[in-house]
Amino acid sequence: MLSVKTPEEVLALIESEFDNLGKTELVSLYAAMGRVLAEDIMAEEYVPDFDRSTVDGYAVRAKDTFGCSDAIPAILSLAGEVLMGEGAEFKLEKETCCAVPTGGAVPEGADSVVMIEYTEDYGDGTIGIMKSAAPGMNMIFRGDDVFPGKLVLKKGRVLSSQDIGALAAMGKMEVPVAKRLHVGIISTGDELVPPEEKPAAGQIRDVNSPMLQAMLMGFGCEVTNYGIGKDDEALLTSMVERAFDECDAVLISGGSSVGVKDATCRIIEKLGTLLLHGIAMKPGKPTLMGKAQGKPIVGLPGHPVAAYFVTKLFVLPLLSRLEGRDMQRYAVKARLTESVGANHGRAQYQSVRLERREGVLYASPIRSKSGLITNLAGAEGWFCIERDCEGLAKDAEIEVFTEQEA
Amino acid sequence: MLSVKTPEEVLALIESEFDNLGKTELVSLYAAMGRVLAEDIMAEEYVPDFDRSTVDGYAVRAKDTFGCSDAIPAILSLAGEVLMGEGAEFKLEKETCCAVPTGGAVPEGADSVVMIEYTEDYGDGTIGIMKSAAPGMNMIFRGDDVFPGKLVLKKGRVLSSQDIGALAAMGKMEVPVAKRLHVGIISTGDELVPPEEKPAAGQIRDVNSPMLQAMLMGFGCEVTNYGIGKDDEALLTSMVERAFDECDAVLISGGSSVGVKDATCRIIEKLGTLLLHGIAMKPGKPTLMGKAQGKPIVGLPGHPVAAYFVTKLFVLPLLSRLEGRDMQRYAVKARLTESVGANHGRAQYQSVRLERREGVLYASPIRSKSGLITNLAGAEGWFCIERDCEGLAKDAEIEVFTEQEA
Repeated sequence: MLSVKTPEEVLALIESEFDNLGKTELVSLYAAMGRVLAEDIMAEEYVPDFDRSTVDGYAVRAKDTFGCSDAIPAILSLAGEVLMGEGAEFKLEKETCCAVPTGGAVPEGADSVVMIEYTEDYGDGTIGIMKSAAPGMNMIFRGDDVFPGKLVLKKGRVLSSQDIGALAAMGKMEVPVAKRLHVGIISTGDELVPPEEKPAAGQIRDVNSPMLQAMLMGFGCEVTNYGIGKDDEALLTSMVERAFDECDAVLISGGSSVGVKDATCRIIEKLGTLLLHGIAMKPGKPTLMGKAQGKPIVGLPGHPVAAYFVTKLFVLPLLSRLEGRDMQRYAVKARLTESVGANHGRAQYQSVRLERREGVLYASPIRSKSGLITNLAGAEGWFCIERDCEGLAKDAEIEVFTEQEA
Repeated sequence: MLSVKTPEEVLALIESEFDNLGKTELVSLYAAMGRVLAEDIMAEEYVPDFDRSTVDGYAVRAKDTFGCSDAIPAILSLAGEVLMGEGAEFKLEKETCCAVPTGGAVPEGADSVVMIEYTEDYGDGTIGIMKSAAPGMNMIFRGDDVFPGKLVLKKGRVLSSQDIGALAAMGKMEVPVAKRLHVGIISTGDELVPPEEKPAAGQIRDVNSPMLQAMLMGFGCEVTNYGIGKDDEALLTSMVERAFDECDAVLISGGSSVGVKDATCRIIEKLGTLLLHGIAMKPGKPTLMGKAQGKPIVGLPGHPVAAYFVTKLFVLPLLSRLEGRDMQRYAVKARLTESVGANHGRAQYQSVRLERREGVLYASPIRSKSGLITNLAGAEGWFCIERDCEGLAKDAEIEVFTEQEA
């Protein structure tokens, strides 16, 4: 018999039991935003590919300007002008200079650029330089940014807009990424009707399918919603088998009744191995996890708030493992607006609303008597009260995980 | 002549000059994730629509159980059983009870539910109750969660998976959202070639178009990339006019040369009003902003790092204003791994890499000599050194805005 595991043990279990499925594809640079990079990206070229000026001014040989000043300018012959977007086709000789725009190519022979503010054009083919240049001043040299073989982006990274910019700079028009995981969702429960139906007496709408579909699609998965499975083991078995054939991972939510829970266990054991039977967390205890042919099957609690936390906390890390994603989650510090009790020996997860007042971020726990909507709607984040903590007082500083954007 | 404005002044300018375009549409619940809610959502029904049990047990009249215990159980006649997903079609009479599953309907007349653990089925049609019930115990009443007219979600909110769950619970299959903004992007610069081309001498690849396109698409916009405009005022004017006709907002990036900058100013003034000529920030100073027919035209700096920060800091809030988005951005606290100087009287923005060591989050500034790729690739967030700050020491606690997910 499998025992109930702590959240840390569940994460360790995921780490040890599951691995990168290794399914990758090439996508266009323009479609790579938010995708999971499947290979390390090394530079293949020098960037920039030529020596560039970082200012508008005159390219010089630094030596020719040593000791010059406002009072005693160095007088250099104007050897030419580099136009934006064109190469510098000549070599700068001794005691000459060359006009270059910001970003323009610096000709061979020059080793620095003097800003236009420190020069004077005498109009007779000579330029006065009022400030001595040090070699390298106001220049970027070929390969200063990157050079062939330099590691630019690490495998597993979720590509940001800045990364897309870096890939564009290198001319990387096709990007190797992890294929989107295909996740199947099944809701179970004789009391459930699809959200578009008006519930009859004793029925409620299926909340988990649309909520989980939204969360998984937001995470970058393809989702197939297999609908609602009634409390019938044969029917449920065929639904799960079909989903398991078609998908990389299957989530079965609901089945709070002992009958369905047991059926889900038996279905998992028929397909493969049951790995987990309960997590020491609140809400979310009645969670099952199994594995068959390297793919996970997760039995989520029926209550949407519990299903939400189990999916955020364990299913997303599990999916990250399958696609080789380096999943990062950062917490913001906030102050609790009221005390929250906890003394049941389980990690407790609580949704909050966030509000900034006079520069301080306040977190208000969303309380409700097992309410669905009031517990879900309008939450801006959540925090955890650890297992061995007996609750948190008003004004306690907590770490909140937010639904952040941009 | 317009003066350079501080970041706070620019945000205030956006607030006062731009308003919600008011373009909305109805989308399916299944497509509403991440969209901006265009109307307050009020409940139209009671949820739940019937009194429900939160446990497996027996529905009772609390009064009938007063004073009972393990030693002296209250003996109640079993009047029936409520099945999951069905209504409770009878009324519970005095000194009777009724079996109900978790989530099942509680029959009229009952006011509480005793968990099965505290009962015994004598098998003769009677049930022993070992624990006295208080009215309301283990029950959720009709409308406890929401009732008609209750405000559930506020206009402007970016819909999260939990919000989708709440909407599903209410049967809200079509959701009023702000239409995706259509943003046009133009890059300018004679030195630029499209990223798919190999740059010739003196040329570099256009980084801003793909980077900005990725950022804006990630933010939920539709983007048209109008390509690269050469430094030719007539050509640029016709590109901007076309983009302005077709889009809700236009971004012109580049034109670091004085010629293009001036041309962009003139184009904005021809179409409407120039509102801003320079922001006191580093990088990002050479930023223009104008307005025509309520739509913005922004002239972004050519350097990708500067264009990135100006877009994150000002263009996304501006777009939020146009679509009525309640944009929230939260910072995480991190410790600087090295000192960062700043003493130029401008707010300074700096990209960082983040790393957690022994429970502490460390931020390493990404330094490079005006490098493109090394400054962009692999950043996990950014922070600001305020205008009046002379730099930050190693180990200083900073507030980092992250590229967060999930």
